[in-house]
Amino acid sequence: MIKRNPSIANIKAGYLFPEIAKRRREYAAAHPEAKIISLGVGNTTEPLLPHIDQGLVEGAKRLGTAEGYSGYTDEGFEELRKGISEVFYKGAFSPAEVFISDGAKCDIGRLQLLFGPGTPVAVQDPSYPVYVDGSVLIGAAGPWEGTGYKGISYLPCTAENNYFPDLSKLPRDGLFYFCSPNNPTGATANRDQLGELVRAATEKGTVIIFDAAYAAYIRDPALPKSIFEIDGARSCAIEVNSFSKPAGFTGVRLGWTIVPNELKYGGGESVNADWARICGTIFNGASNVAQWGGLAALDPEGLKEIRRLSDFYLENAALIRKAVQTLGFSCVGGDNSPYIWARFPGRDSWDVFAEILEKCQVVTTPGAGFGPAGQSFIRFSAFGHRPDVEEACKRLNKLKG
Amino acid sequence: MIKRNPSIANIKAGYLFPEIAKRRREYAAAHPEAKIISLGVGNTTEPLLPHIDQGLVEGAKRLGTAEGYSGYTDEGFEELRKGISEVFYKGAFSPAEVFISDGAKCDIGRLQLLFGPGTPVAVQDPSYPVYVDGSVLIGAAGPWEGTGYKGISYLPCTAENNYFPDLSKLPRDGLFYFCSPNNPTGATANRDQLGELVRAATEKGTVIIFDAAYAAYIRDPALPKSIFEIDGARSCAIEVNSFSKPAGFTGVRLGWTIVPNELKYGGGESVNADWARICGTIFNGASNVAQWGGLAALDPEGLKEIRRLSDFYLENAALIRKAVQTLGFSCVGGDNSPYIWARFPGRDSWDVFAEILEKCQVVTTPGAGFGPAGQSFIRFSAFGHRPDVEEACKRLNKLKG
Repeated sequence: MIKRNPSIANIKAGYLFPEIAKRRREYAAAHPEAKIISLGVGNTTEPLLPHIDQGLVEGAKRLGTAEGYSGYTDEGFEELRKGISEVFYKGAFSPAEVFISDGAKCDIGRLQLLFGPGTPVAVQDPSYPVYVDGSVLIGAAGPWEGTGYKGISYLPCTAENNYFPDLSKLPRDGLFYFCSPNNPTGATANRDQLGELVRAATEKGTVIIFDAAYAAYIRDPALPKSIFEIDGARSCAIEVNSFSKPAGFTGVRLGWTIVPNELKYGGGESVNADWARICGTIFNGASNVAQWGGLAALDPEGLKEIRRLSDFYLENAALIRKAVQTLGFSCVGGDNSPYIWARFPGRDSWDVFAEILEKCQVVTTPGAGFGPAGQSFIRFSAFGHRPDVEEACKRLNKLKG
Repeated sequence: MIKRNPSIANIKAGYLFPEIAKRRREYAAAHPEAKIISLGVGNTTEPLLPHIDQGLVEGAKRLGTAEGYSGYTDEGFEELRKGISEVFYKGAFSPAEVFISDGAKCDIGRLQLLFGPGTPVAVQDPSYPVYVDGSVLIGAAGPWEGTGYKGISYLPCTAENNYFPDLSKLPRDGLFYFCSPNNPTGATANRDQLGELVRAATEKGTVIIFDAAYAAYIRDPALPKSIFEIDGARSCAIEVNSFSKPAGFTGVRLGWTIVPNELKYGGGESVNADWARICGTIFNGASNVAQWGGLAALDPEGLKEIRRLSDFYLENAALIRKAVQTLGFSCVGGDNSPYIWARFPGRDSWDVFAEILEKCQVVTTPGAGFGPAGQSFIRFSAFGHRPDVEEACKRLNKLKG
């Protein structure tokens, strides 16, 4: 009988978020009276704002008309690709460098096909699980070895190094996943740090997969919102981004990936041409309805709504940060990002997760789920309804003493 | 510098449909006066029918409300998974065996991760390009060798064997992509043939990836619409399907994949559990707006619209088939499928493609683009507007003599 892909067997049982959902269900079954609040998974909860939603509605209506109907859109609407370049990159990219996706995670799953299983992979530690799990799936990483997967370089980002990794550990001719504002830590790299990153990647011949999915949450004007604000990035970086967190599109599914024409492999071949080929071969484009919503999100009214929605979640983040700090725990994030990364020194993060669930009926995400350096940390997500966030903050007081 | 995935270098330049689009553009540039009609790519052209479209519209509106908003949906709405099982499989599958996708092609690109690069792959020849190209991308097939990729078993489906392959050639412990109604030939396997297929796969320990994307076009009540109508299929088959061609959702992006609980690898592990893990890791579900559209498509009014839309394209198919036969060419398909596969004995199919474009200003798809056995064939697609199809049929007369 056909055999299992040995790479799947290498993945540790249970993707982080399904595992958390399972523990939540078990707790709920044992405590049917509990009103559980989630500050766990980074899933948006507020309804779409009216102008952007109207873009989706009009797009759906258009499909019912002979003039407005459209089928396959492959790399996405030309107008949307132009709009993304203009709004987020001052028009620095041609439409052929902007690929419309059904979300950052999905593209991250496909991107590694560009480089294949022989490529050394490095991640910030902690990091968003798909970088590592995707690498294992494609065979670029081997089995779990106690604190990490064989073949993955984990570059710790801790309070000690201000959540920015020691880049001397970057592998040569490899791939480095870098997320800023960071999921899970909420730390945001500054211009000098990203300059250092681009220099190190260029010097090592390593490609940066820059995950900017939370860029819309940056409020400090000094902080870069894209790796392409840094000179030299066009020849060493790919940027993935998403409408999920800025516009509440987690369920609508729309994102984009920038693959600059300047990016080449060691043999001189165009990465952009290969990415077009991969997308044409195993992807058929994002939903056209979602793309019409994306167009609405990029016009002046839509951009105001993105600002309003991200402001709202940032207010949640400020409440959570204050509650955590009031309890005497140190934390990072929540100012230019929707995540708060709180430290519980000397503790196992799944134990802290369990304690918060038991004492407060609040679901969080245990830091260890994001990598070895996440041990003793808890990620709080700000993507909740306001009354829930306020109530959760109140309940966190039960962690005192 | 980072290296290119050697598997990408193995893929022949130019995915079939972009290549056709390029040739069409070149012809149009050289003949700006020509009114080109496409019977080429299988892209739907008719607007959505009102009830299904209203499902999308209502779904989009719902996202603007506190009660109706939803974020990540992972394997898809439970109600949609139940609906698919009830409407298409008489309720034979639990929701956990029905995975909602953003389309058949996208899932086919992911499915091979279940088995990995070491798995022998066989395809019907000719076949839909993604089976082969996806296998090359993942490293399950090697470089192009004259008439096919190294490591792929091409099982010819020709007029001589009535478009059903010789199953004694099926590799052991491998993967067999089988599409019925077939793209590109339009041939539809009957119950006896599918029975033979399931027996052969079971005996060889080979898994069938059954592509049923055109099942809604079957009109002959004796022909099976799903591999799961055959006893024993649950332990040897995965079925991919789509709303694209039944409901005109090519741009909306919605499909599903059935992975039965009975399907196990040689080591006894559950394929279903791995598929859930792969989807959770590198996919985030289909657009919720598309899913609401899918729910509308499955209710009685929606099913009537699916019938009406597929009837319309089948009427196109009948016109094309008649025109081709009137010219004296033999063909298959077009009765229970939207494709007509016409034979031009002794000719190179790209030459015939060029001749039809030159003489008739009609774009078709050259059979050789679907595999070695497609040489001397042309695929005509019935997914056009009626006046275009009528005009194209008239122009085909220019091929006479």
